[in-house]
Amino acid sequence: MKKYNNKMLSVPGIISNGIHTGVKKSRNDLGIIYTNKGIAAGVFTQNVVKAAPVVVSEMNIENEVTRAIIINSGNANACTGQLGYQNAVETIKCVADKLAIDPKEVLVSSTGLIGKQLDMDKIIKGINPLIDGLSENSYHKFPESITTTDTYNKTCSCEVKIDGEWITVVGIAKGSGMIHPDMATTLGFLQTDVNISKPVLQSILSNIIVDTFNMISVDGDTSTNDMVIALSSCEAKNALVEENTTEYDHLTEAMLYVTKMLAISVAQDGEGATKLIECTVTNANSDKCARKMAKSVIQSSLVKTAVFGNDANWGRIICSLGYSGVSFDPNVVDLNIKSESGMITLMEEGVGLEFDETKALKILSDEKVIIEVDVKNGEYGATAWGCDLTYDYVTINAEYRT
Amino acid sequence: MKKYNNKMLSVPGIISNGIHTGVKKSRNDLGIIYTNKGIAAGVFTQNVVKAAPVVVSEMNIENEVTRAIIINSGNANACTGQLGYQNAVETIKCVADKLAIDPKEVLVSSTGLIGKQLDMDKIIKGINPLIDGLSENSYHKFPESITTTDTYNKTCSCEVKIDGEWITVVGIAKGSGMIHPDMATTLGFLQTDVNISKPVLQSILSNIIVDTFNMISVDGDTSTNDMVIALSSCEAKNALVEENTTEYDHLTEAMLYVTKMLAISVAQDGEGATKLIECTVTNANSDKCARKMAKSVIQSSLVKTAVFGNDANWGRIICSLGYSGVSFDPNVVDLNIKSESGMITLMEEGVGLEFDETKALKILSDEKVIIEVDVKNGEYGATAWGCDLTYDYVTINAEYRT
Repeated sequence: MKKYNNKMLSVPGIISNGIHTGVKKSRNDLGIIYTNKGIAAGVFTQNVVKAAPVVVSEMNIENEVTRAIIINSGNANACTGQLGYQNAVETIKCVADKLAIDPKEVLVSSTGLIGKQLDMDKIIKGINPLIDGLSENSYHKFPESITTTDTYNKTCSCEVKIDGEWITVVGIAKGSGMIHPDMATTLGFLQTDVNISKPVLQSILSNIIVDTFNMISVDGDTSTNDMVIALSSCEAKNALVEENTTEYDHLTEAMLYVTKMLAISVAQDGEGATKLIECTVTNANSDKCARKMAKSVIQSSLVKTAVFGNDANWGRIICSLGYSGVSFDPNVVDLNIKSESGMITLMEEGVGLEFDETKALKILSDEKVIIEVDVKNGEYGATAWGCDLTYDYVTINAEYRT
Repeated sequence: MKKYNNKMLSVPGIISNGIHTGVKKSRNDLGIIYTNKGIAAGVFTQNVVKAAPVVVSEMNIENEVTRAIIINSGNANACTGQLGYQNAVETIKCVADKLAIDPKEVLVSSTGLIGKQLDMDKIIKGINPLIDGLSENSYHKFPESITTTDTYNKTCSCEVKIDGEWITVVGIAKGSGMIHPDMATTLGFLQTDVNISKPVLQSILSNIIVDTFNMISVDGDTSTNDMVIALSSCEAKNALVEENTTEYDHLTEAMLYVTKMLAISVAQDGEGATKLIECTVTNANSDKCARKMAKSVIQSSLVKTAVFGNDANWGRIICSLGYSGVSFDPNVVDLNIKSESGMITLMEEGVGLEFDETKALKILSDEKVIIEVDVKNGEYGATAWGCDLTYDYVTINAEYRT
């Protein structure tokens, strides 16, 4: 597998574009992904309050063929009542008309402020130039078009050999607030040219979400608009990928790589974040327990502020494990922190150790801080990613609408 | 019932005291409550990681008689291994010796930094003057002795007629971080002179906790040290309070009042808080659902920062209801915000309304902001209390150990 993190390759048979319509101040705010004859898989937010585009796309993705995804940022089209649904449907129809395809083959996705009606004038007016501008070379304009408070675009690509053919997997995602995935998260778009059936693509997507997007949290808030869509042009010459084969495993590995890198990028660029926090739990007695414990640590406001302050206040880590909902024996737990600058054991067999505060400060000052927890209770592990809680998080979110 | 919020009355048959031993910089850090022949009820943290004093007190409260509670602040005696248990037990023994009572009749409670061994020299040395100073008039020194990052002492009292006798109920609690009760929260001590049996006192305490301490959150972190103890001197002349009687209801009402006021004080004085946030959910289809929804709102970092920024970003409120784990129809929900300055409906039947931003700003600028949610799904309601998320929260928690 050839890996290209933070890079967007072109995918055979898929083109995309992004433009600025004026919904956001200056950055691109309307994007499209198009393929001549594609199939799609998707995972959607588990929030009871689902934005109109989520409801509409969950319906449309049931169709055999998906050829286009239209995405706007700056407005979530959530809690917008009947008119919100109408606007989502009208956006789809307008895209289908312009592309001369069936509206059933179009998905729609939105992100931004909740509770305002879409500025349909700007969106409808934007669709023409957006689609006119679609070319083999316009794809680099797409990632920005789905961002909101992101400080950088999130892309990742890889190439992997499937049935003797090199196929491409590309992912684009956005952060960076209201990030606490439950079955899906944020907006994520995976593109590939692998020859695959819809159910097999869905199977891979559903499997990899659990260990990637569902293992990050910025603020504990599960969005109304989360969706991750995988779209394939099916143009590669490989024989159809089947479940329980080596080819399935290789493709899973490639899609897992791309999705994991995107998920980490979203955590790293969490609103106001200065650091990525990674928590790895080992030797838990199930996958589920390991995941719960790792997520509990990276979600704790007290852990997040301590990491921001370069404070090795490990009591907060063990406390957050304790309320994770998992039963374990705290008296056997080991706890390390590490980074590029080294590693320190803070707790052994449930008891705090004396440690070198200067070294701890150095470790915690790095951009990526790893918390390792060994619960000695089984053979399962999990990793979760989050970020520190900073003054800038408060600034960004105290003034979001203004 | 005569109510005295923010005031500590003296309780017949119970005396208390507090002193400064040097564990904390300047404020009192060791406190004691004593009664000649008392009975106690308690609720304790549900965190899997329980501090030594929690484990020891959970055991000791099983005994018929409880006569003293010793509390230190500044050090939680949590994650301190075997030595931590020994120190908790030694503290109890030292108190029992000095008071010439059975160690089984003593409870111990700690709050503060996790993972450091107690400075037993200071504590043991402090116990003598602490107990020597116990008098009818020393009780006003007690509340400060249990505080950590609190900006004020939390006390509430009331008097209620039970079986023709005026009895007194007094409560003292502490905040103001790692506050997210699960069955109990923080440290809370209720004192009364009502003549009551241990199981009936426990029954009342367990009932009122659910709607008071368990309905507040400052940071989502359930502490390792939470406990609420109710202690009665049983000195009042009323006939023993029995369940399913008017007297039971009156006493419940009095204890509920005191506990609720303490819980609100803890939320209001949450670390860095400038405002109390109250969320009331009405017409839910069960008590449990109403509680879950109300708590979900006051826990949301995005709601908390929006309130700090005086921003009526109600989409975050409906979003947090949506991920509360409760199933409901978002298309019928009404949402108001109100305060001393007035009331505004932000959402009706699931759709956002145009509203007067100046009025919203005025409402949100008040010290107590009320969020009202009508889910039109049943006849149950609940109220939860939290606080805004501010720069000072980050400051306090980035630098807690230093």
